[in-house]
Amino acid sequence: MRKVILDCDPGHDDAFAIMLAAQNLDLLGVTTVGGNGYLENVTRNALVVLEKIGRTDVPVYPGHAGPSTTPLVIADNVHGKSGLDGPVVTPPIRKPETKHAVDFIVETVMSTEHVTLVATGPLTNIAAAINREPKIAEKADALYIMGGGAYAGNWTPAAEFNIYVDAEAAYKVFHSGIPIYMVGVNLTRQCPVTPEFIERIRSIGNTTGVFAAELLDFFSKGGDVHLHDPCAVAWIIEPDIIKEAFLHVDIELNGTLTRGMTVTDLRFLQTDKPEADIDLTSTYKWNDPPVGSPFRGKEPNVHVGMRLNYPRFCDLVVETLEKYK
Amino acid sequence: MRKVILDCDPGHDDAFAIMLAAQNLDLLGVTTVGGNGYLENVTRNALVVLEKIGRTDVPVYPGHAGPSTTPLVIADNVHGKSGLDGPVVTPPIRKPETKHAVDFIVETVMSTEHVTLVATGPLTNIAAAINREPKIAEKADALYIMGGGAYAGNWTPAAEFNIYVDAEAAYKVFHSGIPIYMVGVNLTRQCPVTPEFIERIRSIGNTTGVFAAELLDFFSKGGDVHLHDPCAVAWIIEPDIIKEAFLHVDIELNGTLTRGMTVTDLRFLQTDKPEADIDLTSTYKWNDPPVGSPFRGKEPNVHVGMRLNYPRFCDLVVETLEKYK
Amino acid sequence: MRKVILDCDPGHDDAFAIMLAAQNLDLLGVTTVGGNGYLENVTRNALVVLEKIGRTDVPVYPGHAGPSTTPLVIADNVHGKSGLDGPVVTPPIRKPETKHAVDFIVETVMSTEHVTLVATGPLTNIAAAINREPKIAEKADALYIMGGGAYAGNWTPAAEFNIYVDAEAAYKVFHSGIPIYMVGVNLTRQCPVTPEFIERIRSIGNTTGVFAAELLDFFSKGGDVHLHDPCAVAWIIEPDIIKEAFLHVDIELNGTLTRGMTVTDLRFLQTDKPEADIDLTSTYKWNDPPVGSPFRGKEPNVHVGMRLNYPRFCDLVVETLEKYK
Amino acid sequence: MRKVILDCDPGHDDAFAIMLAAQNLDLLGVTTVGGNGYLENVTRNALVVLEKIGRTDVPVYPGHAGPSTTPLVIADNVHGKSGLDGPVVTPPIRKPETKHAVDFIVETVMSTEHVTLVATGPLTNIAAAINREPKIAEKADALYIMGGGAYAGNWTPAAEFNIYVDAEAAYKVFHSGIPIYMVGVNLTRQCPVTPEFIERIRSIGNTTGVFAAELLDFFSKGGDVHLHDPCAVAWIIEPDIIKEAFLHVDIELNGTLTRGMTVTDLRFLQTDKPEADIDLTSTYKWNDPPVGSPFRGKEPNVHVGMRLNYPRFCDLVVETLEKYK
Repeated sequence: MRKVILDCDPGHDDAFAIMLAAQNLDLLGVTTVGGNGYLENVTRNALVVLEKIGRTDVPVYPGHAGPSTTPLVIADNVHGKSGLDGPVVTPPIRKPETKHAVDFIVETVMSTEHVTLVATGPLTNIAAAINREPKIAEKADALYIMGGGAYAGNWTPAAEFNIYVDAEAAYKVFHSGIPIYMVGVNLTRQCPVTPEFIERIRSIGNTTGVFAAELLDFFSKGGDVHLHDPCAVAWIIEPDIIKEAFLHVDIELNGTLTRGMTVTDLRFLQTDKPEADIDLTSTYKWNDPPVGSPFRGKEPNVHVGMRLNYPRFCDLVVETLEKYK
Repeated sequence: MRKVILDCDPGHDDAFAIMLAAQNLDLLGVTTVGGNGYLENVTRNALVVLEKIGRTDVPVYPGHAGPSTTPLVIADNVHGKSGLDGPVVTPPIRKPETKHAVDFIVETVMSTEHVTLVATGPLTNIAAAINREPKIAEKADALYIMGGGAYAGNWTPAAEFNIYVDAEAAYKVFHSGIPIYMVGVNLTRQCPVTPEFIERIRSIGNTTGVFAAELLDFFSKGGDVHLHDPCAVAWIIEPDIIKEAFLHVDIELNGTLTRGMTVTDLRFLQTDKPEADIDLTSTYKWNDPPVGSPFRGKEPNVHVGMRLNYPRFCDLVVETLEKYK
Repeated sequence: MRKVILDCDPGHDDAFAIMLAAQNLDLLGVTTVGGNGYLENVTRNALVVLEKIGRTDVPVYPGHAGPSTTPLVIADNVHGKSGLDGPVVTPPIRKPETKHAVDFIVETVMSTEHVTLVATGPLTNIAAAINREPKIAEKADALYIMGGGAYAGNWTPAAEFNIYVDAEAAYKVFHSGIPIYMVGVNLTRQCPVTPEFIERIRSIGNTTGVFAAELLDFFSKGGDVHLHDPCAVAWIIEPDIIKEAFLHVDIELNGTLTRGMTVTDLRFLQTDKPEADIDLTSTYKWNDPPVGSPFRGKEPNVHVGMRLNYPRFCDLVVETLEKYK
Repeated sequence: MRKVILDCDPGHDDAFAIMLAAQNLDLLGVTTVGGNGYLENVTRNALVVLEKIGRTDVPVYPGHAGPSTTPLVIADNVHGKSGLDGPVVTPPIRKPETKHAVDFIVETVMSTEHVTLVATGPLTNIAAAINREPKIAEKADALYIMGGGAYAGNWTPAAEFNIYVDAEAAYKVFHSGIPIYMVGVNLTRQCPVTPEFIERIRSIGNTTGVFAAELLDFFSKGGDVHLHDPCAVAWIIEPDIIKEAFLHVDIELNGTLTRGMTVTDLRFLQTDKPEADIDLTSTYKWNDPPVGSPFRGKEPNVHVGMRLNYPRFCDLVVETLEKYK
């Protein structure tokens, strides 16, 4: 089982990321960051989820309360006031660790072989850890993120929420050299929360299944929603569950309309049907401008998730939840 | 037949736009603008194409040599030194008109009912005309443009060439209130120039067919290319040839990576397979932020071409070329 | 007397620019542009001022109603609802010319030797004229502008009103190659409207003096104000009235806080006391970065007004007004 | 004596900041940051300076190697390859502390009353400390910075080096609520390094004086230079040595030409002679736009140094150096 640290801001879909990671991976710790909700809330929510699934052995380290540069924006329109509205829960018995999330990340990666980082919230903690100890970008196996999108956003027309909230942190991380596997909204839109899926989970019948179903009841109240965060964890568990394209991706910091966009160079890809039946071997033979032109394509730097095996994803979630109490 | 003015920068694909418009529409005039090539060249090329197809009755008005604000960038990597490399042609006999393109556009629109504008180059002339006489934005029936893209670019990862070259003009035009039908690279990538298509055109056997085939021989030399510009004209001729989505589109002026992007709000659309088999009636029921949030979706303002009937497009081009000498 | 075209948006201080130009220069025409007020108002105000001073021989050509790219912002907090509040005036008898300001500028500069342009409003018309006929940038003797500032703004902390309103036009003009003499707010703040100056003008006793004093009564009501626009005209009349530094100036289009700033490279200038007693021959020997660095100083391109002979300016205004009826 | 932590990147002028602080203030520690030179070099240089002046009791804590978001730019054109070229020095005997600078800052401020922070390099460490523990912005007495400028830059026309290098960190710090005293290049240009001053220091005759003079010999080789960093420390030692204006200052993150500018609202100040003999009580009565306008002046948030008592500064430096061995 791969060793992972999960940096998150639960958040309904983060809860599913925790459940997948705690059962199928060697989860060294959960770190929290202000994002979907305020730090205090998302830390409490992480403790709640871990207690609910009987995994109080996994330590929770609170990290940064908000972005490195700009003020925090939260997504209470999606996740409610608590950041995890829906199920009635009792306050967690455990307290979070006193060590700072960034120190835990730096110390663990530097002292342990083959740690994989997963980030399902804003990249504030990850960027701070790289700033604190640039060597972790080489030492860690990889960083899987839920964030961005290959061609569109969800929070703004161009930007996805996690990247938008701390675009500077994302810029730092994407320029750090750490191998990045990006699960963006182009991928997670293939992962809808359907009534059938909710009922399949509820009918598992155990405590975790009921809890998970109630989370989805609230989460899907506002309209069509998608299980973003667990896709990133699922990709680590089953590398074939997502088909990727290796592409150049950079972060826009300055646009009036596009700040926080993960600008993805799709020009050399057969992008007519980007996700439906993308041919991942062929490339779009475009008239690349002459060498030296600022308009030329740049080298690929990010493994971009393009196609999700949704039926297998649903099975993986159900199989995982069945194993809990 | 709808009355149109075609503003263009020929350009291999502009040549096909001229051929389609001159045969199937009431082409009141061709206006030229610096873009694919320098103004002098694209004006000469417009005259060459019209002579080749025997339509020296269509006047050609030269317009702006370059963008309203920034220096001109040309696409000689695509269109060659002359802007229309390939066929051996003799210099045109005709001279262009002495009236400025912008004056022709303003005077014609203000004095004629139901004029439709088509722009297949940078929007410099169109913006200048609107600046000169803002009323044309109300008086003209519509503006069809080849430019931009619903989710990606071709000149840069985010921006298409025509919009990139004069982003400020595009901003002006998109904010002017004129009804816009946008044929972006998301649409035109469905319009490949295949060897079969070239041979089908060559085998028509008339002068125009040979000329057109030689244009495509050069144009497709560098790799997979697409017939961008004539798609915009085809949409006027046969409104059913393109399926649209009515979406909010704005122009990014400031991004480091995204300047000139036609930022398209796809959040409320079923964007999983944006072009393949998009359901144009259903909308993506996304958790729209509360009223007043800067992140909410804005009102649709542009008819965005999403799906091309490519077989019908090929037939239309062939049928049109057959009618020439 | 130098031949000038005055492009303006009266505006109280524009009125003084007209009075100075009509008496001391060969004023070929006045062109108007949306800026301090709406085009209709500023055109009427130009006609009013010329009638008031008995110069109905000077033609008035209306130009662009607003900026080339962005929406118009007016300064009614400074100039009142009419754009020239204060004196009670009757509507002008004359009508403006039907020729567009841009055509008048292009035709006059191309057909006449040694025309000097003066712009005391947003640079919309000037940029449109250069776009229309780039050769005027070489053919005209010079462009004197009231706009920008060597180190600060007035409309925003960084930007002066005229440049802010149409930053794209300013960018075009500053990159066109036309010799530019810039009278910015750093200079015009040396030109206060004092109660003594108003009374000195009123006491001239003629119609023009009373009109001018009433303009200043309103203009100075809100606080300390300065006679910006006539400084640019005064510089043409008496080249010694302003001391200049020849500096590199560029226009910021993209800043969140600095859009429309005339970014002036003061690094090589003794800037300790930029206006007080600047030594215009010595330069600031700064550690210029190595050749090739993006941080090096660039070549001077703008004659920046640094020090006004204010007493002489006041005398010039009074002497000029005395010559009117 | 006020308790201070000095965050710096020595750097020739940083060396003088250390000398002033170690003698005249309660210097709790020196923290280092990548800036004028690489972190390894500036840390070594801090140790060198402290050994030279016999203050090996002051601990040195290395901090961040480079900016929070963007790549590091160093100023080796000013400070030479070592970051402190000039005097021949032996490697320091002491090692830096193992505790990270950010932890030292956070722990010291949170556990000690009335700590004043001084930053004479990029604000990377200070921003990281505020991100780590936002409460230090309230707990610390103040932050004195050498950085920015009230109306011009030195590294670019608009931006000063320290702010330019880590504009995002500056943005964070300036928006954190910590009381800021800004010594920008507008102030430090009043602090030239003259041959007379160098000789006066050399003639002190002690080891520190010779070392200091040799630093200035190298520093002033390239042209007119100024003692930037010690001005910030001098202001703490003798509050009357600098006259301030309390102004609104914000950080530009996005400008093409102005990134890293400390945009200072001088509109309400008598800015005709900003430093020469500024009247710090009167304000510029400008026509402030109506309430609600984005163009209105905002509340003052930064104490901006405007006028240096240069003779007293020179005396203070000499008196300080005399007290060392």
